[in-house]
Amino acid sequence: MDATAVLFANETFYHAFSHRDFAVMERLWAREWPVLCIHPGWPVLTEHAAIIESWRRIFQNSATGTVTPHYARAFVYGAMATVVCYEEIQGALLVANNTFIVEAGEIRIIHHHASHCANPPPPETKSAPAMQ
Amino acid sequence: MDATAVLFANETFYHAFSHRDFAVMERLWAREWPVLCIHPGWPVLTEHAAIIESWRRIFQNSATGTVTPHYARAFVYGAMATVVCYEEIQGALLVANNTFIVEAGEIRIIHHHASHCANPPPPETKSAPAMQ
Repeated sequence: MDATAVLFANETFYHAFSHRDFAVMERLWAREWPVLCIHPGWPVLTEHAAIIESWRRIFQNSATGTVTPHYARAFVYGAMATVVCYEEIQGALLVANNTFIVEAGEIRIIHHHASHCANPPPPETKSAPAMQ
Repeated sequence: MDATAVLFANETFYHAFSHRDFAVMERLWAREWPVLCIHPGWPVLTEHAAIIESWRRIFQNSATGTVTPHYARAFVYGAMATVVCYEEIQGALLVANNTFIVEAGEIRIIHHHASHCANPPPPETKSAPAMQ
């Protein structure tokens, strides 16, 4: 797994999210590996069909609006990689970890876990926060 | 990675958490691989030293109390595995995903992401929720 490629896959994920591109979102999710999706406040979803359905419901909710990732960083673990980023949604900031794997020659997502960030980095450092 | 072994490592993690066993918690975190820890509401921590320090601070806070994992499920991806579970803390329910890797012959944690679960499964199904 290559860090640049996985960051591009993460960008594709947020582009599909922001543009409610259901076909791209569906294609991004792995079919052969166990998958896991935790939307803010939701119970965990671990069935592929339930995850795809959750995106359909989210895309049908016109209040969602644009989702902008900030400060995405990739951590590569051999054949898998995790991207950590902040998500800006309607002025709120969430923190997300997205894990990807290569499947059928494509980089596909196996984990998405987004949660509220009550203690975000200051706005001016969103693109390069000094958090630790 | 074996599902039973990783579930045991997850149990060790929560035992150390509940009993404020700093030595065990410190030993559980990987040193050779990138690590990631997202406590509820905190900004993401990606430096090993910052993560260990966060546990020291959490263990110093006497209000934390016991943390009981419920319905832990392991998803194995070759040499890595993710455990998803609910965490019961002071009557509140969080959802967590914990990812483990083998390092120096031990199963060590590389990711911990816990977040509030506003829509948990009903209490009677906590040990076997039908979420999807």
